[in-house]
Amino acid sequence: MRESPWEVVLSAGPGTPTRPASTDTTALVTAVESALGEFFATRRELVDELGPVFVTSVAALQEFVLRGGKRTRPAFAWTGWLGAGGDPNGPEAAAVLQACAALELVQACALVHDDIIDSSRTRRGFPTVHVDFEHRHRDRGWSGDAGHFGKSVAILIGDLALAWADDMVAAARLDPAAYIRFAPVWAAMRTEVMGGQLLDVHGEAGADDSVEAALRINRYKTAAYTIERPLHLGAALAGADPELIAAYREFGTDIGIAFQLRDDLLGVFGDPAVTGKPSGDDLREGKRTVLIAEALRRADATDPTAARLLRGCLGTDLTADEVTGLRAVITDLGAVGEVERRIADLTDRGLTALAGCSATTEAKRRLHAMAVAATKRVA
Amino acid sequence: MRESPWEVVLSAGPGTPTRPASTDTTALVTAVESALGEFFATRRELVDELGPVFVTSVAALQEFVLRGGKRTRPAFAWTGWLGAGGDPNGPEAAAVLQACAALELVQACALVHDDIIDSSRTRRGFPTVHVDFEHRHRDRGWSGDAGHFGKSVAILIGDLALAWADDMVAAARLDPAAYIRFAPVWAAMRTEVMGGQLLDVHGEAGADDSVEAALRINRYKTAAYTIERPLHLGAALAGADPELIAAYREFGTDIGIAFQLRDDLLGVFGDPAVTGKPSGDDLREGKRTVLIAEALRRADATDPTAARLLRGCLGTDLTADEVTGLRAVITDLGAVGEVERRIADLTDRGLTALAGCSATTEAKRRLHAMAVAATKRVA
Repeated sequence: MRESPWEVVLSAGPGTPTRPASTDTTALVTAVESALGEFFATRRELVDELGPVFVTSVAALQEFVLRGGKRTRPAFAWTGWLGAGGDPNGPEAAAVLQACAALELVQACALVHDDIIDSSRTRRGFPTVHVDFEHRHRDRGWSGDAGHFGKSVAILIGDLALAWADDMVAAARLDPAAYIRFAPVWAAMRTEVMGGQLLDVHGEAGADDSVEAALRINRYKTAAYTIERPLHLGAALAGADPELIAAYREFGTDIGIAFQLRDDLLGVFGDPAVTGKPSGDDLREGKRTVLIAEALRRADATDPTAARLLRGCLGTDLTADEVTGLRAVITDLGAVGEVERRIADLTDRGLTALAGCSATTEAKRRLHAMAVAATKRVA
Repeated sequence: MRESPWEVVLSAGPGTPTRPASTDTTALVTAVESALGEFFATRRELVDELGPVFVTSVAALQEFVLRGGKRTRPAFAWTGWLGAGGDPNGPEAAAVLQACAALELVQACALVHDDIIDSSRTRRGFPTVHVDFEHRHRDRGWSGDAGHFGKSVAILIGDLALAWADDMVAAARLDPAAYIRFAPVWAAMRTEVMGGQLLDVHGEAGADDSVEAALRINRYKTAAYTIERPLHLGAALAGADPELIAAYREFGTDIGIAFQLRDDLLGVFGDPAVTGKPSGDDLREGKRTVLIAEALRRADATDPTAARLLRGCLGTDLTADEVTGLRAVITDLGAVGEVERRIADLTDRGLTALAGCSATTEAKRRLHAMAVAATKRVA
């Protein structure tokens, strides 16, 4: 699971006010991190009671959560709430912010567990959690398999993050009526992201390499989880009318899918100097993206040699020349053009839904900028 | 993580009324399973939307949850609620039952993830979830590592169970005041069980083989999670006074620890014909139980040869004769007698706390029977 590179937008706020009283994103990132830090502080007594081993494990989680990240999901949820009339100076604001920040704990679970599933060794320039604990095991000369130990600890740390996400929502003490609106959306979001990851794991195993399957993974693992449901959560907390919720969801789904399609293109064609990842990485990993599914679909229909080449090469240790060759094959099949068309169509549709909705002007301006940055980016 | 063998008590209910209007446990098991089945039914629409791969994964979770199990934690929570004055015919009963049943989804996550951590191949006579999906991968000839695929799916299915536990509580629509009392106990319980498992994983790696470390794992992984907190949850839902809550927690901690100590003894000395597990299994697995920690502590102090023998043999593939030899060493060191004394002391203290508390006579009778069955059992 890649993180969403909204940084262009999320660092473009005008100055650094000390509270998230507007859609200013620098202040929001600060406020979200404060809320997370405060939540960890409330767990301290319970954690200490379990002793030093647990204290160390929780410290690793806290470090992971607070180390960085763009707070994309809280930003969408908070902006959705403001756009639906939420008052940043009102009595509900602190509880709403805490509930939005809790999304980062769901995300911590998703990333920690996804790194085990993807056998990823680093994230954000640091060892992944399971690798970190593998190293600790080895450094201390403990008994048993260090790799298995690292994964075991990371499974449990991810579980803790997921449980704490709910505890953080509960501790926010949302207004009961707002909580009743919030809970089913929160439930749908968590189910969708886990469902999307289950589809992804099955997709990588080759259960289904169709365009439809890849789009479905994209929709649930990325679009719903990253944009649609966070906006929906914000709207639900504000008690938005069904029309605004529908518009947010349309915008969120379209822009979320388009964002992932752009990510798919960058994973094959991105400039390593800009993306910070080896060129053609997705080809070496054999990722079953919409781009690849589209290329396979076209090759199966028109070019059996290209189909054999693609299936034979994807997920293998390709040289730079082989990557260049595969890129040409994918482009010549028309898959790149098709994905670019999809991105353009989805972006248009999403922005139209946004433009016509009843959200505040400021929220619409901010969401428009986030959408453009997400779908036109080069890294 | 072993399941708690309360079956003697839990199948001893007088007849099978159709609702859990009393502490009758057969009816309670039925009611808990109905509540779980109904909750799964409410997820159907969302699950179907994600497509057949997700439907299949959720079906595996549902089968796992409904296949069996003694519903120990819901039974303690429900009995705790009744004992604190909860009215099984009152307007709150259905919501309370649903919240109690949600404990089984926390437990599903704990078991599914624990089976990965312990590399267990079977549970309740069926393949564990990760092994089940490993087989599916292999049978279908999918690409990649079948074992890794199975574990990946099981991580995500466990995550889903944990998220759904909270969703099931939210969907119960507890009275807001009851929910506010419930939430911090629910939070503590989930944190404690994950913390206990983290301590256990570190303990197996040899981070700390002291009696204190083993007792701490026992307390959080078993006692708090299985008895103390479920009773506390029930009491919190009923709005019990602090004295009753304190008595429940004392009873739950003492009986829970004693129960696990009995389990430790059975893991080394149990009759395989009764326990259904190979004799001396805990010795071959190298489990760091209080019994073993006590034996090591005594050997270190008085018998270096025995200490070397124990450390050299634990966790290896022992013959039946070697198991017999180790049993004699552990007994001769006085570790068995010490653990029996602890069980007797804890049971006395727990039963005294129960006897003196303000719970209803019927709940006290039932909890007394459950405590005796748990601490005196032979399987």
